[in-house]
Amino acid sequence: MKPKKAETFRSWEIAFPNDANPLGTLFGGRLMAIMDKMAAIAATRYAEKPTVTASTEAMDFKVPVRVGDRIQTFARVVWVGHTSMVVKVDVYAERPYHFQRFHCTTAYFNFVAVDREGRPSPVPPLLIETPEEEREFRIAEIVKKKALERKKKIEETR
Amino acid sequence: MKPKKAETFRSWEIAFPNDANPLGTLFGGRLMAIMDKMAAIAATRYAEKPTVTASTEAMDFKVPVRVGDRIQTFARVVWVGHTSMVVKVDVYAERPYHFQRFHCTTAYFNFVAVDREGRPSPVPPLLIETPEEEREFRIAEIVKKKALERKKKIEETR
Amino acid sequence: MKPKKAETFRSWEIAFPNDANPLGTLFGGRLMAIMDKMAAIAATRYAEKPTVTASTEAMDFKVPVRVGDRIQTFARVVWVGHTSMVVKVDVYAERPYHFQRFHCTTAYFNFVAVDREGRPSPVPPLLIETPEEEREFRIAEIVKKKALERKKKIEETR
Amino acid sequence: MKPKKAETFRSWEIAFPNDANPLGTLFGGRLMAIMDKMAAIAATRYAEKPTVTASTEAMDFKVPVRVGDRIQTFARVVWVGHTSMVVKVDVYAERPYHFQRFHCTTAYFNFVAVDREGRPSPVPPLLIETPEEEREFRIAEIVKKKALERKKKIEETR
Amino acid sequence: MKPKKAETFRSWEIAFPNDANPLGTLFGGRLMAIMDKMAAIAATRYAEKPTVTASTEAMDFKVPVRVGDRIQTFARVVWVGHTSMVVKVDVYAERPYHFQRFHCTTAYFNFVAVDREGRPSPVPPLLIETPEEEREFRIAEIVKKKALERKKKIEETR
Amino acid sequence: MKPKKAETFRSWEIAFPNDANPLGTLFGGRLMAIMDKMAAIAATRYAEKPTVTASTEAMDFKVPVRVGDRIQTFARVVWVGHTSMVVKVDVYAERPYHFQRFHCTTAYFNFVAVDREGRPSPVPPLLIETPEEEREFRIAEIVKKKALERKKKIEETR
Repeated sequence: MKPKKAETFRSWEIAFPNDANPLGTLFGGRLMAIMDKMAAIAATRYAEKPTVTASTEAMDFKVPVRVGDRIQTFARVVWVGHTSMVVKVDVYAERPYHFQRFHCTTAYFNFVAVDREGRPSPVPPLLIETPEEEREFRIAEIVKKKALERKKKIEETR
Repeated sequence: MKPKKAETFRSWEIAFPNDANPLGTLFGGRLMAIMDKMAAIAATRYAEKPTVTASTEAMDFKVPVRVGDRIQTFARVVWVGHTSMVVKVDVYAERPYHFQRFHCTTAYFNFVAVDREGRPSPVPPLLIETPEEEREFRIAEIVKKKALERKKKIEETR
Repeated sequence: MKPKKAETFRSWEIAFPNDANPLGTLFGGRLMAIMDKMAAIAATRYAEKPTVTASTEAMDFKVPVRVGDRIQTFARVVWVGHTSMVVKVDVYAERPYHFQRFHCTTAYFNFVAVDREGRPSPVPPLLIETPEEEREFRIAEIVKKKALERKKKIEETR
Repeated sequence: MKPKKAETFRSWEIAFPNDANPLGTLFGGRLMAIMDKMAAIAATRYAEKPTVTASTEAMDFKVPVRVGDRIQTFARVVWVGHTSMVVKVDVYAERPYHFQRFHCTTAYFNFVAVDREGRPSPVPPLLIETPEEEREFRIAEIVKKKALERKKKIEETR
Repeated sequence: MKPKKAETFRSWEIAFPNDANPLGTLFGGRLMAIMDKMAAIAATRYAEKPTVTASTEAMDFKVPVRVGDRIQTFARVVWVGHTSMVVKVDVYAERPYHFQRFHCTTAYFNFVAVDREGRPSPVPPLLIETPEEEREFRIAEIVKKKALERKKKIEETR
Repeated sequence: MKPKKAETFRSWEIAFPNDANPLGTLFGGRLMAIMDKMAAIAATRYAEKPTVTASTEAMDFKVPVRVGDRIQTFARVVWVGHTSMVVKVDVYAERPYHFQRFHCTTAYFNFVAVDREGRPSPVPPLLIETPEEEREFRIAEIVKKKALERKKKIEETR
């Protein structure tokens, strides 16, 4: 398959009262659901075939999203293997009537492309052209390596 | 504060058609939302005060949940610091008409107890009595340590 | 079929703002939907085949659930006929930051096991071992008998 | 307060795929939620003050609603006490492209009018003019009487 | 096909907190969704076959719906062509505890009846008997004519 | 106030099974709700104060969105008055595993900026720099003029 460039997918949401905890801030689970949806769009559109979420990497929720905030999301494939892709998702919150803008979280989602029976299926290699893309690729590799180390260490303890 | 035992919170859900991808399996984001809700219940009930999701650790989705499956979730505080708690969440799926049961994922959520203004607020120390509780505590420590290493390494690369 | 013991299914929910009336308490209909879901899980897992809600018995809502409360539900098959089951569902509410706990309602749901065409289909007889199980069985019988009397009386009046 | 006539509140819904069980028919809990919403509208509009669901009487689900069906609901206050009202709700299902119409269930909901603090608050007496209204009133009384008998009998057994 | 009378479809909803903007009034999009659902019920039941929304005419939101309001909707087929229908939808809001009632909006939806493959399919001609029905028919024709003029004018400018 | 440039707000959604009609295509009402949300984001962020949907112009649904499609939305303020704004919203659908892309609809939403009491409140004039912006501005004026003509004509007929 011919190498291919990744696109950035942008999205806006509004934080509705229904998904808030008693402090008036968004449940983490609601944010994760928005991020997974956007990551799935980025992965599926890159692969041009069905994809499933294989795993997610750790995510820090730095600034809570408040009810009424606008939530902006950026999703982009940053690393590609034979049948798997890493999607980086950045989330920002904006207070309703100002341009004040907060970085809420950055998350890495691992997706696998599958055929109609759900078996892993190849995706085109990622075309990397800019230093920024190069850096994102290297960070995704660290994320993946650390995830493996962590897994091994936990299994030794169990 | 007096040390305190953690309880296990159990829950059942049904996988509804609405949350499925085109392959008929549940979106990862929906599962994350269920896990965060249960983790919040375990953390809030342990702390007896408001709590917020500070971060989540990596999670592997080993077996996809299919539409119609029953989803069973177990959430339990396994590690406690001064104002923070680690909640372990285990998810199992069961095919509709059989006792066949699959382990889908295990996730670690970090919560912080807060006061009404949202500032960190102390929680009672965790009472650890069984070897199983001891092992879970040690695994949570590895999880936390590896998360810190990963964070530092990414910051060096950026 | 071999007699079989019934299991208790537990679940936790949080009362979200979206399902509240203008007094800040949960709509009865939302609570009924949670109970029916849990009753369906208990019935389907007992029968190991599809089940449908045939009828519900009267339910009193003793203490209103407030937004932010944790809702705990217990569902258990307490009576079994040839193709039908009675599921008892108990609902408790817990104020967000205390162990204060209120019994909200107890409801009885009648389920019928069905085959793939929707026709009634047999279920295993219920194994009753403890005095508590014996008492629950007898109460379910009263519930069913009174329901029949009521139905007959209404038909005479129409 | 001056006696007052009750109005009939009509509503249409469509049965969406999201609320179906694996047999393609609507969950009982979804139907109960629709009925409680309509009963609340009938009770609140009669009382012209806040109302809460105090209890529901037994309901039979005679014909399952299928996904795609139109659901027609009729709700009407049929009995009124000092602070309480009985609302009768009739539900019919219609297959998507035909006038075929099935009676699904009839349910009785007991509501209490409350003031802003949630304490019971008086409602106007019900004006009964037709034989049909008279009959509905008598049936509601049987429903209430049988509910009391049932309750007493269960308490004796416990 | 034999000419046929149109029926009026009525519905009640409650404005839930989840669909409000930060001013506590309902999002226009939520109201449009309610209107389209009711219009679809009116069109499908008139046609007795599947229908799709082809277009909507302009709608003014005259009075905002507040959270807690009851929303009453009336939908009725007012104009019929060979395969298409115009449905008029009127929306009123009622404050929770009063008979105060506001006209929120009137909208016109154009539907096309389709066969199972999605191709336009004929519907019975509309039977018009009263002066009111006659007037509604003429207004629908103006609505359609103005829509065409507008479309042509925009295309000339593009 | 200083004139100000308008930004384009982009968003992606996935068409979920829950919002489909029996033909497997999205309800018009669901699409309208997505468009109104995006239009509200564009208007509120332009005005930097609360806004309400005052009216919408006619919209044609040219290509039905199918379940599983990705929905891309573009929203942009194209015309500005003293307290009101016209937002143009373009919607495209993309089949799940291809770059095939269809223009579904273009809609014009009229928003009014309001203060905290809901009274109209001024917004900055729109800075128009490109011929494309000039053309969009002129089309919005036609849309507004035709809407007025239509309204007057309907009132004469009533």
